[in-house]
Amino acid sequence: MQGAVLYGPRDVRFEEREIPKIMKPTDAVIRISSACVCGSDLWTYRGIQHVEQPTPMGHEYCGIIEEVGKAVKNVKPGQFVIGSFFASDNTCPTCQIGYQSSCQHRELVGGAQAPFLRVPLADGTLVATSDVPSEELIPSLLSLSDVMGTGWFAADAANVKTGSTVVVVGDGAVGLLGVLSAKQMGAERIIAMSRHVSRQKLAREFGATDIVTERAEDGVSRIKELTKGIGADSVLECVGTQESMMQAVNSTRPGGFIGYVGVPHGVSLDGEQLFFSHVHLHGGPAPVRRYLPEMTKLVLDRKINPGKVFDLSLPLDKVAEGYRAMDERRAIKTLLRP
Amino acid sequence: MQGAVLYGPRDVRFEEREIPKIMKPTDAVIRISSACVCGSDLWTYRGIQHVEQPTPMGHEYCGIIEEVGKAVKNVKPGQFVIGSFFASDNTCPTCQIGYQSSCQHRELVGGAQAPFLRVPLADGTLVATSDVPSEELIPSLLSLSDVMGTGWFAADAANVKTGSTVVVVGDGAVGLLGVLSAKQMGAERIIAMSRHVSRQKLAREFGATDIVTERAEDGVSRIKELTKGIGADSVLECVGTQESMMQAVNSTRPGGFIGYVGVPHGVSLDGEQLFFSHVHLHGGPAPVRRYLPEMTKLVLDRKINPGKVFDLSLPLDKVAEGYRAMDERRAIKTLLRP
Repeated sequence: MQGAVLYGPRDVRFEEREIPKIMKPTDAVIRISSACVCGSDLWTYRGIQHVEQPTPMGHEYCGIIEEVGKAVKNVKPGQFVIGSFFASDNTCPTCQIGYQSSCQHRELVGGAQAPFLRVPLADGTLVATSDVPSEELIPSLLSLSDVMGTGWFAADAANVKTGSTVVVVGDGAVGLLGVLSAKQMGAERIIAMSRHVSRQKLAREFGATDIVTERAEDGVSRIKELTKGIGADSVLECVGTQESMMQAVNSTRPGGFIGYVGVPHGVSLDGEQLFFSHVHLHGGPAPVRRYLPEMTKLVLDRKINPGKVFDLSLPLDKVAEGYRAMDERRAIKTLLRP
Repeated sequence: MQGAVLYGPRDVRFEEREIPKIMKPTDAVIRISSACVCGSDLWTYRGIQHVEQPTPMGHEYCGIIEEVGKAVKNVKPGQFVIGSFFASDNTCPTCQIGYQSSCQHRELVGGAQAPFLRVPLADGTLVATSDVPSEELIPSLLSLSDVMGTGWFAADAANVKTGSTVVVVGDGAVGLLGVLSAKQMGAERIIAMSRHVSRQKLAREFGATDIVTERAEDGVSRIKELTKGIGADSVLECVGTQESMMQAVNSTRPGGFIGYVGVPHGVSLDGEQLFFSHVHLHGGPAPVRRYLPEMTKLVLDRKINPGKVFDLSLPLDKVAEGYRAMDERRAIKTLLRP
């Protein structure tokens, strides 16, 4: 088979790779229905994070099970499944408490930008639908694997409730789906911080009530103006830079909540500043597995349509163009069809 | 009158000061029943935090109202009152949400180690009891003003619930009262980190079920051994140093909660490390005013006895010895009688 492999900064190649096989009795191999490029793939693509060796890319996936290992009991060949980017056993004390992305036996899933994928810990990781879903639902179901699950976690970690005033920092796919999630959780007011017209439009479609185009101190002033001078109840930090994190801290009211899901790159928090800000801070790699059953139902019932973040759809062999379009911010998120 | 004034490192003087007067119509002046020395006073006493000029000391207080300004309606002369170290109007949006220590009009109260004290924003700040309480309850009522209120906030911020497993980092008066608070909130297991026999004893009396004497990595290993290998549900950080904060982060299970109330001095949190720890972080100056009615009732009903942290009682004119005893860790906390 042929799949995407990253060799170094801005060097993604579509090349021959071995078809994945069952390596452990708890594995499954799935035939990918659709794959995509993640915002976090850009950290390595841009060379901000170094790759040691040619690395098969892609960690968001859904598809049909081809084969399962001997120990697998919960899923079987022919079923349509979705899983998280972190495989988890879903039985350890950390999984049981709902933090499957910190599972004691977690494994990163990799190489999903390809026709086939090996998923470890299949019983704990994969969630099957009762039937094979119709084609037009695939983008939304795929998004649950990471980008939508991460936006959802951001809103949940930021304690979004009915009536909340919410700020979303970051207008990438995760931020936009943070808007959708906040709306779904009953937020009354959702302020999206974005300077890009196409992204503002999608943010509004997903439920944003206000758009703030200013950044840094001006952005904070604007948020304060919109929130009785004190800041928002909930802020979703969906970028992962020092600037975006401080934007979040300074936009939150005392006693308010920050959900941060952008993998921090060079972020440092001053203890004293955080102390006097009085904010709640929670984040990390999204425990997607916790939310998968609920989110899947919402998609199958056509209550949410997170697949709208895919504004570029390419055949898998055009994967390099998919990365380029996202890197240059010509596309929000690229869908890849094997 | 004579009161305590800090001139510089380890130079506390008991000297003549003007009797405080009503300066604004919202002020009250109270006759101090008892005052005390705070762990946070030691930051300036030790010169870690600099004082620009001779500074009247003390911010924990209870006493009888002498006089009120013309605008004061909720309290009147003759009443016994307790208030927080931050005066607050208790009406602004931040107060209404329970974060009075970030009140939009907050003022630090200072100079309580004296016979009289001016309290700004008296209506919002002071909580009166229905009768003047009996003498033996004064130490416990005094403690609510800061040290007990801060321990309580630490436990609340760390989400302590019935059945929780709790770690308390710091065996100063705040940490010990964090133990008492966690017990009161229903914690099943309370692990106090302490190397001092007298403090271990008081921790056990307040409800600690386990004592860990190790620190840093060894301390974390010991906590992990005691908590299914994953860490505690709730960790109270009651010190404010880099070491104690990292002790807290590393002792918390994924998805667990840290309540931090030690004013951070030189603490810096690495964003990526915090992200992958998956902890919830909340803290700041305790919103004592929120908890005062509930805590006061618990003391008056003799359900809690936080005044036990005062293991040294001195007449006010011996205030310098009170600081020395705490600085040298001969005393946990010093009570001062005017």
